[in-house]
Amino acid sequence: MLQSKLFGKTSKTAPKDADSVNAALLAQAGFVHKVGAGIYEYLPLGLRVLNKIEDIVREEMNAIDGQEILMPIIHPIELWKATGRDKTMDDVLFRSEGHGGSDYVLGASHEETVTPLLARFVQSYKDLPISVYQIQNKFRNEPRVKSGLLRGREFGMKDMYSFHATKECLDEYYDRTKVAYTNVYNRCGLTSIMAEAGGGAFTDEYTHEFQVECDYGEDTLIITDEKAQNIEVADLMHDHKNPDEAEAELKEIEVTRGLSVEDNAQAHNCEDWRILKTVVFKLESGGFVGVCIRGDLQVSKEKAAAYFGEKVFAASPEELESLGLVQGFISPVNNDIIDFIGDLSVDTVNNYVTGANKQDLDVVGVNVGRDFTCKEYVHLADISGYEGIKEVKATEVGNIFKLGTKFSEACDLTFNDAEGNVKHVIMGCYGIGTTRLMGTIAELYHDDKGLMWPKSVAPFHVHLIHLGNSEDVIEAAEDLYEDLKDAGFEVLYDDRDAGPGAKLADSDLVGIPVRIVIGNKTIGEQSCEWKLRNESDASIVKLTDVASKLSEFYAL
Amino acid sequence: MLQSKLFGKTSKTAPKDADSVNAALLAQAGFVHKVGAGIYEYLPLGLRVLNKIEDIVREEMNAIDGQEILMPIIHPIELWKATGRDKTMDDVLFRSEGHGGSDYVLGASHEETVTPLLARFVQSYKDLPISVYQIQNKFRNEPRVKSGLLRGREFGMKDMYSFHATKECLDEYYDRTKVAYTNVYNRCGLTSIMAEAGGGAFTDEYTHEFQVECDYGEDTLIITDEKAQNIEVADLMHDHKNPDEAEAELKEIEVTRGLSVEDNAQAHNCEDWRILKTVVFKLESGGFVGVCIRGDLQVSKEKAAAYFGEKVFAASPEELESLGLVQGFISPVNNDIIDFIGDLSVDTVNNYVTGANKQDLDVVGVNVGRDFTCKEYVHLADISGYEGIKEVKATEVGNIFKLGTKFSEACDLTFNDAEGNVKHVIMGCYGIGTTRLMGTIAELYHDDKGLMWPKSVAPFHVHLIHLGNSEDVIEAAEDLYEDLKDAGFEVLYDDRDAGPGAKLADSDLVGIPVRIVIGNKTIGEQSCEWKLRNESDASIVKLTDVASKLSEFYAL
Repeated sequence: MLQSKLFGKTSKTAPKDADSVNAALLAQAGFVHKVGAGIYEYLPLGLRVLNKIEDIVREEMNAIDGQEILMPIIHPIELWKATGRDKTMDDVLFRSEGHGGSDYVLGASHEETVTPLLARFVQSYKDLPISVYQIQNKFRNEPRVKSGLLRGREFGMKDMYSFHATKECLDEYYDRTKVAYTNVYNRCGLTSIMAEAGGGAFTDEYTHEFQVECDYGEDTLIITDEKAQNIEVADLMHDHKNPDEAEAELKEIEVTRGLSVEDNAQAHNCEDWRILKTVVFKLESGGFVGVCIRGDLQVSKEKAAAYFGEKVFAASPEELESLGLVQGFISPVNNDIIDFIGDLSVDTVNNYVTGANKQDLDVVGVNVGRDFTCKEYVHLADISGYEGIKEVKATEVGNIFKLGTKFSEACDLTFNDAEGNVKHVIMGCYGIGTTRLMGTIAELYHDDKGLMWPKSVAPFHVHLIHLGNSEDVIEAAEDLYEDLKDAGFEVLYDDRDAGPGAKLADSDLVGIPVRIVIGNKTIGEQSCEWKLRNESDASIVKLTDVASKLSEFYAL
Repeated sequence: MLQSKLFGKTSKTAPKDADSVNAALLAQAGFVHKVGAGIYEYLPLGLRVLNKIEDIVREEMNAIDGQEILMPIIHPIELWKATGRDKTMDDVLFRSEGHGGSDYVLGASHEETVTPLLARFVQSYKDLPISVYQIQNKFRNEPRVKSGLLRGREFGMKDMYSFHATKECLDEYYDRTKVAYTNVYNRCGLTSIMAEAGGGAFTDEYTHEFQVECDYGEDTLIITDEKAQNIEVADLMHDHKNPDEAEAELKEIEVTRGLSVEDNAQAHNCEDWRILKTVVFKLESGGFVGVCIRGDLQVSKEKAAAYFGEKVFAASPEELESLGLVQGFISPVNNDIIDFIGDLSVDTVNNYVTGANKQDLDVVGVNVGRDFTCKEYVHLADISGYEGIKEVKATEVGNIFKLGTKFSEACDLTFNDAEGNVKHVIMGCYGIGTTRLMGTIAELYHDDKGLMWPKSVAPFHVHLIHLGNSEDVIEAAEDLYEDLKDAGFEVLYDDRDAGPGAKLADSDLVGIPVRIVIGNKTIGEQSCEWKLRNESDASIVKLTDVASKLSEFYAL
């Protein structure tokens, strides 16, 4: 491709309305153009990357017997009424009306179309298992869109659905998809973390998310030697300490003790975790708020600040006193002086011990829901002190679900087993956001000069550039361009009549892995400058050696 | 692909709700599944055909410097308000509402998104010309959908848009697209006819439709040695006979004459075309209607029957009399006894001569609109008698438009010319319905046993079948399957344990161009039966010769 003809010029600056690093860089480098909130256009460079990602996904799905199909984007509403998701997903569904009283839902997911489709073709256990997938745009009416390609109203997705006669068959296939998914991310240059996550309404088992560590990520993972878990289901936060202990009566007890959790536990002769601790913060914008947490955990001031979206300060003894709060005896029990936010751990203890908001008075037998509630329960614990536990921010790039029979029951998808019994088909579903993957790669692979694509998804193999306009330079560049194309390489040739500064800056911005510069310095020796985008030093290479060096680099 | 694993089994019969030959055959053979009116799912076989069509389109667009991009399906309504098409196309637009007061239109066409996109990248004449295209689903809220894949509410389309600094540059590119389009259809096995068509609001020039002759087609073409024209713009029907003649006064003239057009023309000493002729039909369902036509043309009874959707009979003299109509002097002038339908030719003469609905009384200086109107103007002329003119039914598989500056003006897409003047960019647009192309191919390439795909778009190169379950037969078939796959052929291998009748019927239904049968009859000689889908006779071929014979057949 001649860069002078390429549609999608680079810009000197990122667009002002870019809401994230990926959106800013991809727009500035000419890969995407924002049409509206959460809606993007893919220009030739961007589409090349997206196609490479899709092809990797396609190959890995085919390798586990997935068969590609294509389902529609507009779904008759009747299909969604059958599963009840016209109501349960109402908030994120786009709807549309057609002639003749037809109502449609724009595909936010495709269980509603794929399950009736299978019902046409599946009669017997001999027709199972089947796995089908499609790669297509999805539509979700997200209230807020703020992460570029990571969260859009229209976005690309591979969604696969598998159909089985037995639970064992689903389990086996589910494990095969884990391998295929890991392959996809590896091939895209990403190290994925498979994390346990909540199952929603579909299943009692965990589902699995594929996450990529990313400072910008929306998710928090708790990682141990054994496994990774989304914070929303992490054992550490969510394992109940004494689930079998019956709720006791709420009782006030006079006490003389110090102010710490340890003092409190000692005074009541109980474990630290049984103490309900409350930390009061002063918000920068004014006002005070209490954060409740299980006694064996610490509140992270950073997380509190991130949650409130502003700076927070520990309230001073004087401030507490002026509010009418008694230091060391503060709790949400019968306390309407301030609002309370709970850490996720709050819901893991029966019969807490905590202060009664009066000097030298505690309450025992305290239970969340019955004796107090917090406005919200979120992850605010600092777990940096726990040995063998790592907490990371991550962005989700895929997920796999065991759906069981939820949709086959709703859509009457049955089969006859070997004994002639009619049973519901057992289903799984498996998603990978393809455009989100592209955004994640941009988020992780860049420096302050621009994008740095991994080999497998780069828009071109090589960026060939001539510097200066002398005849021998241009002729050598044009010859090399033709030779490399003939050898099967994807070449972006910067044939523009522009200054070296602009051309090299553009090359860094676009981020093709290999840059070849032909200029006056090296042309006398029939050589060029070879530089990898992710290395700082260039080397001099004979023009005749470029093709073999490229073959080696790309292992072609 | 093993047929035992292929998703999308054939059916013994076509689905009852199939509305056309293409929908019936494609569904019965397992290529598509109907989700709702005008909405289809593409199963593995269907998607393979669609992908091959798309690849042909892609190659031909790339060959004329089209650059592939991908635009969104949901468009902010503001973009459509800018061009006014939120109103002018209102009836076929699907709309949707999003959070935060956002309103969307589902892409029915993409001028509204592509023009602002170009405005980001085009500043100077040096940035032009550019041609970009996408292949993507489109959405049109069609009131009636009745032709399977030929007319859907959601359908696949390649839409290309070109941008130019001068009219000459557009004209030149427009001619290049004609060649590319013809290549696409040829490569898909279709003989396309490029027909002049109406330009709508965009241009005074003709646009061009690419049509394929097809009994089932919705369009009528008039074809001469010189050119083809959509009946809607055909010179023969639409060339005005005396446009410069001023409208005369309406005048009654007593006359004694015979009843034919010739008699009438002779009596008034005028050309046949100046006579306004009216033919009265009796409808099978009851009632009478008059069909008006220019005097040099004949009304086609077949077309009238097709238009009214029932049998029609010429009204007898007695019937005319009983209605109060005077045979030989019937006209729509001051006549409210019956309704009148006009042939397209009615609007091509100033100052008609016709009967005054009284015996021996004519009117001259008769003008459509002023002195009479018909309920509708449609093509009802029989032109079979015209030498050198052919009339055919056809289905449109593509169209090209010169848009001029309509959209660049609405979306403020300008450039600086070499002299520094700010000008509006001149645009063209070019569409090919990819799913419609698939439906058209199915419509044209089938017999009573099933589909008969052209080589270039067939879902597989070869359908390999074993008949009988003897060990040597199955082993030979499996070996050939592996060998052909290794040689790069796309093979559907019918490995099912089913009877010869069912397997061969399925093969005819699916319609892969080459069928190879391995069975007991020929295996002793290490041979198989080679048969082309569009030939009736099979030949015996050595197993070792199959690959070379396939290479030859496919010119690989």
